[in-house]
Amino acid sequence: MISIIILGAGRSTSSLIEYLATHSDHNKWTLTVVDIDKETIHRKCDRYSNVNGVADDLRKSDILEKWISSGDVIVSMLPAFMHPIVAAACLKYDKHMVTASYAGSEMKSLDSLAKEKDLIFMNECGVDPGIDHMSTMEIIERLRDDNSEILSYESFTGGILAPESAKTLWNYKFTWNPRNVVLAGAGSAVKFIQEGLYKFIPYNKLFRRTEFIKIPGYGRFEGYANRDSLKYISEYGLNGIPTMYRGTLRRPGFCRAWDVFVKLGATDDSYEMDNVLGMTHRSFINCFLAYHKTDSVELKLMHYLQIPQDSEIMNMLNDINILSDEKVGLERGTPAQILQHMLEKKWTMGKGDVDMLVMWHRIYFKKDNTKYRLESSMVVKGKTIEDTAMAFTVGLPVGIATRLVALDKIKSRGVLLPMRKELYQPILKELSEWGIRFDERVTEVES
Amino acid sequence: MISIIILGAGRSTSSLIEYLATHSDHNKWTLTVVDIDKETIHRKCDRYSNVNGVADDLRKSDILEKWISSGDVIVSMLPAFMHPIVAAACLKYDKHMVTASYAGSEMKSLDSLAKEKDLIFMNECGVDPGIDHMSTMEIIERLRDDNSEILSYESFTGGILAPESAKTLWNYKFTWNPRNVVLAGAGSAVKFIQEGLYKFIPYNKLFRRTEFIKIPGYGRFEGYANRDSLKYISEYGLNGIPTMYRGTLRRPGFCRAWDVFVKLGATDDSYEMDNVLGMTHRSFINCFLAYHKTDSVELKLMHYLQIPQDSEIMNMLNDINILSDEKVGLERGTPAQILQHMLEKKWTMGKGDVDMLVMWHRIYFKKDNTKYRLESSMVVKGKTIEDTAMAFTVGLPVGIATRLVALDKIKSRGVLLPMRKELYQPILKELSEWGIRFDERVTEVES
Repeated sequence: MISIIILGAGRSTSSLIEYLATHSDHNKWTLTVVDIDKETIHRKCDRYSNVNGVADDLRKSDILEKWISSGDVIVSMLPAFMHPIVAAACLKYDKHMVTASYAGSEMKSLDSLAKEKDLIFMNECGVDPGIDHMSTMEIIERLRDDNSEILSYESFTGGILAPESAKTLWNYKFTWNPRNVVLAGAGSAVKFIQEGLYKFIPYNKLFRRTEFIKIPGYGRFEGYANRDSLKYISEYGLNGIPTMYRGTLRRPGFCRAWDVFVKLGATDDSYEMDNVLGMTHRSFINCFLAYHKTDSVELKLMHYLQIPQDSEIMNMLNDINILSDEKVGLERGTPAQILQHMLEKKWTMGKGDVDMLVMWHRIYFKKDNTKYRLESSMVVKGKTIEDTAMAFTVGLPVGIATRLVALDKIKSRGVLLPMRKELYQPILKELSEWGIRFDERVTEVES
Repeated sequence: MISIIILGAGRSTSSLIEYLATHSDHNKWTLTVVDIDKETIHRKCDRYSNVNGVADDLRKSDILEKWISSGDVIVSMLPAFMHPIVAAACLKYDKHMVTASYAGSEMKSLDSLAKEKDLIFMNECGVDPGIDHMSTMEIIERLRDDNSEILSYESFTGGILAPESAKTLWNYKFTWNPRNVVLAGAGSAVKFIQEGLYKFIPYNKLFRRTEFIKIPGYGRFEGYANRDSLKYISEYGLNGIPTMYRGTLRRPGFCRAWDVFVKLGATDDSYEMDNVLGMTHRSFINCFLAYHKTDSVELKLMHYLQIPQDSEIMNMLNDINILSDEKVGLERGTPAQILQHMLEKKWTMGKGDVDMLVMWHRIYFKKDNTKYRLESSMVVKGKTIEDTAMAFTVGLPVGIATRLVALDKIKSRGVLLPMRKELYQPILKELSEWGIRFDERVTEVES
């Protein structure tokens, strides 16, 4: 009897629980889900006769250790900062671990210890990071086996609204953690390499340095750069590649309007604002504009950021009530927290909204002195506002990876990313059976 | 016999050493100056028969403690990060301490310990911070004694070139620590209060939110906001004041052109760049611009930042060779370090350059239902590129404060700023005898 413990039952766990519940009986697994919130446990677990849902406070280290020591494979769906704590306990009690999150330096430092204890610490096996790595490696290794030389790599992923959702000017609602969306790109500069030249984009220009992308059947998107393009060069085995660029997809127009908040300083998360209790949407924006005795907030904003009065940007800002006299409704907060709270009033998915997960890779390669462009795209739509594409594309590969670990199909040990064939091949194969598959187009180009 | 020890003999210490040397014999003081650099010690101390100059490495804690334990009043002119270390040793050995630097939270936390030991830890008594505090408090307390109500406070200080220096398009050279100039405003948002409204300026807008200031006889200046305007509201006893704004002065045009570096991300100090050894000024700038097969760096820059081809900004950028094929000449560095190195080639003061320290306060107040504007300004010019106005206006008040401490004229104890009358009154009086004095103009205004 293998015991699988899922720690945390948040947004991305519905498909994960369903998948593992389906595979538990014939594999003779026991499946336990632990979350601090009783209602969440009931909602997510009650429907399965073979899932043991428990409400327990995993922030308490003795409780966390109790659950980890009782399992064989630990799936951590807790907030990212918890993963190193979970990993330390997994080391202590000799347990395998699976997570969808980025493997930070703290996690990576455990590699040799995990290997010594013959353990698998599997990371970045959700969607981004996760399916992007797997599908990339599948293409790269296939091209290499075919004696092609890879000239450039670009990849974009985005969680947005599907076209069948109610139209809004932004074509956007929060389909995932709103805080991550508000803080996207803040902090350190973006780094990538293009045609052999290192390029750096500061936050104040990030949403103005976008690229347009077209995906057949799904229309146009725009993409802005992710912070960490360079660090995957070696992970993907692409040392010496002249172009490496990873980014995030939105519908066209989003970035230009979002840039208003960046330029204002409204996404700053480094200080708490004053007088938040009495603050309205309008007075929040006015905090970032110069004082004037008579000029309106609208006029000052348009003048400050050189937004034409009749531009779509003003319509988009009005669409999210950013200049209204509505109370913010918080007692305290940083600019980023207050902005998030204001946006959640309009950007929380409602009835009729369906989300969509879009992934797109473009790889230029050379074979026999001919240059080719390979484009590969994957689009998954959600079913309801609970059964989202995001939750499906995160939860399912984590579930598959967990099954492979539980069935002892993975021979590698230590801190793993899904870049190895023994990982990405079976996971991609099974994902495609679930409808998560890539369309690929290869075109000869002038060199 | 009182022993005064000056730790560090950097830029701002010439006037300090001269002042204390002049007062040593008749007060029967011994004066010792310690610095790591032998040549600096010779250059600064050899001319005085009563100054003991010693080359010693104060980064070593045993050496630092040896010197602190041997003195009665310790003047720390070391880099700012050293002050808490010096303060801890002063506590240990029961020594008074004087410094020109900002009193951080670490320093302030020593207040009660210093009081218990009957010690003076005197901070912020150079020019900015220092003379700005003293002259502000003199005005504020005078107005209050006259039953006036203070309605708003603005204050700007800047170290720039005097008009008799060789003209440049920027009207600027480094008259002080270049690193501080390059990093000015980077990091957290600027905070101030205007007409009762809290205002926040992000770094990306800091050099576009400037104010123009005119000082009779010295022409026009522009000012950008300092990071910390709010924290002096209580220090100055101005709780409830609707407008509080502190800033830095430059000659008009500087900020608009400097904003180019901010927008590019060239003042980022958070990461090291790649391939610095082979980098030219031009390729440095190109790192922040999008890749293009054929467009020139100039064209990309103008287009990216919407700089008209015939604007003064392009002339200013060319004036500092920012687009030249000259090698940077460093082996490694952050963007900010590389930019500083490039600028030092043009902005290091040379023969014929004279610096100037400008301070300006504007205070609106009400008395007997009439509203007044008080403007107070102070301008000091340097003599040579060694005897700068900056060194004079920092060193002299530190010297005077040290004399007052050595003569036991200060009754307050603990961590002190020069906001108290027993400090600012004698210091300002003596500064005015040295020619550091304020012109004041009061005008009735419409309310």
